[in-house]
Amino acid sequence: MNAASHVEKVIIIGSGPAGWTAAIYAARANLSPVVFAGRPKQVPSTLLPGGQLMLTTEVENYPGFPHGVDGPKLMWAFEAQALRFGTRVVTDKGVVTPDASQQFNGREAAYQDCVKVDLSARPFRVFGEDGKALLAHTVIISTGATANWLGLPNEQRLARSGGGVSACAVCDGALPVFRNKEVAVVGGGDSAIEEATYLTKFASKVYIVHRRDQLRASKIMQQRALTNPKIEMKWNKTVEDVLGESMITGLRLRDTVSGQVSDLPVGGLFCAIGHTPATQFLAGQLELDAKGYIKLRDPYRSTTSVDGVFAAGDCVDSVYRQAITAAGMGCKAAIDAERWLGEHGVH
Amino acid sequence: MNAASHVEKVIIIGSGPAGWTAAIYAARANLSPVVFAGRPKQVPSTLLPGGQLMLTTEVENYPGFPHGVDGPKLMWAFEAQALRFGTRVVTDKGVVTPDASQQFNGREAAYQDCVKVDLSARPFRVFGEDGKALLAHTVIISTGATANWLGLPNEQRLARSGGGVSACAVCDGALPVFRNKEVAVVGGGDSAIEEATYLTKFASKVYIVHRRDQLRASKIMQQRALTNPKIEMKWNKTVEDVLGESMITGLRLRDTVSGQVSDLPVGGLFCAIGHTPATQFLAGQLELDAKGYIKLRDPYRSTTSVDGVFAAGDCVDSVYRQAITAAGMGCKAAIDAERWLGEHGVH
Repeated sequence: MNAASHVEKVIIIGSGPAGWTAAIYAARANLSPVVFAGRPKQVPSTLLPGGQLMLTTEVENYPGFPHGVDGPKLMWAFEAQALRFGTRVVTDKGVVTPDASQQFNGREAAYQDCVKVDLSARPFRVFGEDGKALLAHTVIISTGATANWLGLPNEQRLARSGGGVSACAVCDGALPVFRNKEVAVVGGGDSAIEEATYLTKFASKVYIVHRRDQLRASKIMQQRALTNPKIEMKWNKTVEDVLGESMITGLRLRDTVSGQVSDLPVGGLFCAIGHTPATQFLAGQLELDAKGYIKLRDPYRSTTSVDGVFAAGDCVDSVYRQAITAAGMGCKAAIDAERWLGEHGVH
Repeated sequence: MNAASHVEKVIIIGSGPAGWTAAIYAARANLSPVVFAGRPKQVPSTLLPGGQLMLTTEVENYPGFPHGVDGPKLMWAFEAQALRFGTRVVTDKGVVTPDASQQFNGREAAYQDCVKVDLSARPFRVFGEDGKALLAHTVIISTGATANWLGLPNEQRLARSGGGVSACAVCDGALPVFRNKEVAVVGGGDSAIEEATYLTKFASKVYIVHRRDQLRASKIMQQRALTNPKIEMKWNKTVEDVLGESMITGLRLRDTVSGQVSDLPVGGLFCAIGHTPATQFLAGQLELDAKGYIKLRDPYRSTTSVDGVFAAGDCVDSVYRQAITAAGMGCKAAIDAERWLGEHGVH
């Protein structure tokens, strides 16, 4: 490391609603933020470029779009807005200031993922795929989380095509396609029960498919599920396959006790088997909770266990997980970073 | 109070970014929320209908609008989105479900303000201007805050017409109109210094006009101001008038010691003399801090000192005060209310 190396004011890792919002605010504050946006379709990667909305066909609940908005279009708009104010992006050719008007031409293919950070001393070091480190006075981490899926090819196909398979009841449960249908939730924890209870407002019936004969959910949540007349438990069942061509028509279940296979006709499937925050690359660098979520020093702010490192979005949030909440957190992180820089005399 | 009276699942007080976002989420969760949206141009009132963005010409930093968006247009879009999913509104003719397509026809003139709440027992009671109480299992308070102004007619005229007078440096400081200009900040507390420091990124010089001969700001903040070469203090000065026709050209200052009047040429004025949260009607009902902001029981959530009452937006937030952060908090409040109702068996 060269003592004369340029130190960035703020590096943002992640390009979902939290990351681009942090970039919009940091760029407008003249901080010339640098974003590690991740590389599309690279597996495995730290980042899903654009975040989970890139996998979403229609977003009905992001405020400001009364007729709904296509998930990728919304995220391209976030990106264009960040670029308009001078956000820079790490690409195969180094740190560049992209032309916002050319964003839809596959330019993102050259965006780099972040593979490693060193937060043990300031300036912090943030490493791209090419092994090169950028130096930064502050870092905003907004790498998001991914929903855990069953991993069945038909599940993935239908989830990506709007075929009635989802990992978020709050996002998708109100869509017309699920109204007065019988639907299934897979899982046995608190969020499975929350999702099932939420879905009873729309669906005619909600099956909870669980591989054991009892729930992991808390007592009060179990009570909610077992006494709700619209919820029916399917105990000791694993999902063997998701049925349907363009739209889900049912689940193929295997009984874990008898081994018997049976089909359950449903018009919707909601996976509620947890989320995995994209924080593996932070292990030992930053305080994480037991599930890998970044712990905030002050839960109202974006401050983390390392002074000068801020976090926002689903890599922090195991409770709400909405685009609008993530964007709000991204804004907080940029404002916190800006004030931190001011307090430390970095202009 | 009639024991047979209908009890609403959720009443939302306020119609800024937090209130309408709470309504979008509550309506999509089939809770049929009822909104007290406030009455336009009524003074004094609890609510500013549509919130502070109604006074804003261009919003550059609400994510999703890369080319900026007109403040009132953005709030009408929020409202239309909430109405699309079945949000109801309290009007002079009672609780109605407005036709979203007719929203721009002055229909809001009939919207009611909320004048009183009784949160001492459940169901809660929320009173409109007509003196009638609505009953509610849960209440979301998102009444916002108003910036404190000097109260000069020319200040108000220029603030509302985009004439270079603002109460938010983070919102407006990056606008081209302030670049490389000399601007003034009025105030002497921490936020005056934060605003001034922020503005040094864009302005050629920032005057801090303060009526005393020392700052109320904390030591570290004072240090920032007094050592920043772009900041110059104007001690013992009050603002007598704001000069300029369509655009601010200067301030008329009076020296509080000598009584002498002088003009200071500036191309921008930022008021930083605090905000007043619209929570006066909650006194004795809900725990507030010394400045009147609603205290959150868990600062990551939207829970307040009263079980079943949730809060969101600028009536809570003395730190960030952005449309996007308020909207994120509104989403949290609706999700928290929905889960509260589920836990209490209200379907």
